[in-house]
Amino acid sequence: MANEVILLDFWPSMFGMRTRIALREKGVEFEYREEDLRNKSPLLLQTNPIHKKIPVLIHNGKPVCESSIQVQYIDEVWSHKNPILPSDPYQRAQARFWSDFIDKKVYEASRKTWTTKGEELEAAKKEFIEILKTLETELGDKTYFGGDGFGFVDIAMIGFYTWFPAFEKFGNLSIEEECPKLMVWVKKCLERETVAKSLPDPHKVTEFVAEVRKRFGLE
Amino acid sequence: MANEVILLDFWPSMFGMRTRIALREKGVEFEYREEDLRNKSPLLLQTNPIHKKIPVLIHNGKPVCESSIQVQYIDEVWSHKNPILPSDPYQRAQARFWSDFIDKKVYEASRKTWTTKGEELEAAKKEFIEILKTLETELGDKTYFGGDGFGFVDIAMIGFYTWFPAFEKFGNLSIEEECPKLMVWVKKCLERETVAKSLPDPHKVTEFVAEVRKRFGLE
Repeated sequence: MANEVILLDFWPSMFGMRTRIALREKGVEFEYREEDLRNKSPLLLQTNPIHKKIPVLIHNGKPVCESSIQVQYIDEVWSHKNPILPSDPYQRAQARFWSDFIDKKVYEASRKTWTTKGEELEAAKKEFIEILKTLETELGDKTYFGGDGFGFVDIAMIGFYTWFPAFEKFGNLSIEEECPKLMVWVKKCLERETVAKSLPDPHKVTEFVAEVRKRFGLE
Repeated sequence: MANEVILLDFWPSMFGMRTRIALREKGVEFEYREEDLRNKSPLLLQTNPIHKKIPVLIHNGKPVCESSIQVQYIDEVWSHKNPILPSDPYQRAQARFWSDFIDKKVYEASRKTWTTKGEELEAAKKEFIEILKTLETELGDKTYFGGDGFGFVDIAMIGFYTWFPAFEKFGNLSIEEECPKLMVWVKKCLERETVAKSLPDPHKVTEFVAEVRKRFGLE
């Protein structure tokens, strides 16, 4: 069967970045369709009627929603190369735990670094840095979160890096200073072509965040 | 290798119920250890240092945290009988999507039916019923969420049923009236020994919720 793969996405989405990387890890050709989130396409509303959110992966007409579920789906369908999840059930559970931790903690905390002010911002910065330090502790001296091989947790987290300069600028913090080992991991991930091709320029993300702040009346 | 399986749990936890059911589906003997959540055991704090929450599944000394990750782990380790996730990648992705929907939506919305009052309660009731109706639509005319076989989404959801009488009493609503087909599914699930053995008496849960409401100053 021919594989027709369409990705409904939005360029600064750290969730969309996960699915782009996973598809490229597997060498899957796909049609990237940029969504206007203020005027969502009928196809987005039809393929993700529950959450109405990008990314949506459409494989031979069948939609898969939620980025971490998409990455697992991609790993299971294109199982012939570059395994994303480890094969050992315990290691798989650990990978799922840390990906889930990123989902539950990093997005909300990081968002507050550029949407809040004053005391709320101070608390948000503290929380966000603590979360990054927890991830740094889990990384330890390993090259990637799963060990020697690039995998599920790396894919879950690396897209956030493109937002780091925005978090630093609007939150007035330094991730490099607080989490130097995490930044070593970032640089290692960026050496990978599948990652480099899937991430936008962090400066463009910062400009995008500045625009959103203006729109929200935060500037 | 001998399998030593310990479950750190708390009897009214709908999340713990998932793991109990999954273990029984696989015929795994396990030691159930009740936790006092106001005085958590050193073992709980040591095995789940990140979230400090039950349930924790400890298999041959190695902890697995987060109930839906535990259920997948159990399915992968004891793969010889009663598959929990479907084998087809697309069906697996769908099962993960609905389990994730339950995680993201049902707990928070249901909690508000017994922790809020007035307008907030009215909004919470409406939201909770809408979420249940979405699940009922997904169930459709199938016996179980995955079709003819009891599986991942059923396990994710069925524990909430033991809280239904509490939601109904304190939220002043009728789930049976609003979602009759969902209640048919509940009764079907309860016929299963692995489910019946793993769920507490809903009346006891209601008494427990009444006590918590008193403690929170909500009575």
